[in-house]
Amino acid sequence: MGKKIITVSREFGSGGRSIAKLIAQRLGYAYCDNSVIAGVAKEHGLSEVFVKEYGEYAISKNPFALNLSIGGINRYDAGLSIYDQLFIFQHVYITDLAEKEPCVIVGRCADFILQERTDSLHVFFYADIDFRVNRLANSMGEKFANPENHLKEMDKRRKTYYRHYTGRRWGEAKNYHLCLHTGVVGIERCADIVVELAQQ
Amino acid sequence: MGKKIITVSREFGSGGRSIAKLIAQRLGYAYCDNSVIAGVAKEHGLSEVFVKEYGEYAISKNPFALNLSIGGINRYDAGLSIYDQLFIFQHVYITDLAEKEPCVIVGRCADFILQERTDSLHVFFYADIDFRVNRLANSMGEKFANPENHLKEMDKRRKTYYRHYTGRRWGEAKNYHLCLHTGVVGIERCADIVVELAQQ
Repeated sequence: MGKKIITVSREFGSGGRSIAKLIAQRLGYAYCDNSVIAGVAKEHGLSEVFVKEYGEYAISKNPFALNLSIGGINRYDAGLSIYDQLFIFQHVYITDLAEKEPCVIVGRCADFILQERTDSLHVFFYADIDFRVNRLANSMGEKFANPENHLKEMDKRRKTYYRHYTGRRWGEAKNYHLCLHTGVVGIERCADIVVELAQQ
Repeated sequence: MGKKIITVSREFGSGGRSIAKLIAQRLGYAYCDNSVIAGVAKEHGLSEVFVKEYGEYAISKNPFALNLSIGGINRYDAGLSIYDQLFIFQHVYITDLAEKEPCVIVGRCADFILQERTDSLHVFFYADIDFRVNRLANSMGEKFANPENHLKEMDKRRKTYYRHYTGRRWGEAKNYHLCLHTGVVGIERCADIVVELAQQ
């Protein structure tokens, strides 16, 4: 049976998003990354910056600046924190998304949210730190004073977020159907393997 | 660059050993599983039962019966426990083995021991519990009163052993170059993917 839903989890700087785009192109599936952020934000009157940050990362050291960008916060005074509500919004949005059309969904605990769907393939991409530092410098066009620290901080926040909302350990092989080291396997070959499995 | 050394780590009952044999056959590499046990036992005057058990599993609830099968135990009275010495014996044996010829090595922390070799590919195979229980019943021809409990106990002991001697978390994707869910990917296809990557 072919797989209609591909969820892509990835370490920061591993090239996971680029691979996800290749997979979506080759399979002719919808590519769902920023569109999930925009969709959830629009549906619930939240800023995209807030959804982007707190729908995948644990709270950073200074969350207050971003909190200011929430619109209509009083509507969410229902006992749950705004962060917990955001998780629920995303949960519903991603569950609905998977019903609509074949798609590749990047991040946002989609592997956990869609774990019961037998037509889904859950993939995790990662690489060693040197590969990711190089990629951050070359491909992503961003400049950081200490790129290694930045990568580790982002991973830590994703890991904490995932642990909190799913009870599972981010990056543990058993949460996914396949896990590929992008530095060793190669970006193109990673996409090939996933596409072939999805069509199997 | 092709990979001359393949290390295969696997959950009990996932089919990892069968896949390792297929990989070795297809690549024409030596298949190293029981031969490592026999080699270490012979080299150090230990029983194969002892090496098999305590070279990959944490001590079980009743270790004494097996301890009786150790030959020449007095020779190992050098401050280290016999278990720690066994790890060192295996470490040396596996390091030497990788120097000799292209090979597929199953279990025994070989992924950790050979982590610095750039000509190695480290693979982890796993599957969900139902797949493994079925495999245990059908393919492995063994009968257990409670196969699920048996699988969990074996995994727990491997995990504890691995954690103790490597400081790493068994089954965490980052320790390997690829991790494949054998139930979803399929035994044959798992072998194909690894063979293609090794030849890449």
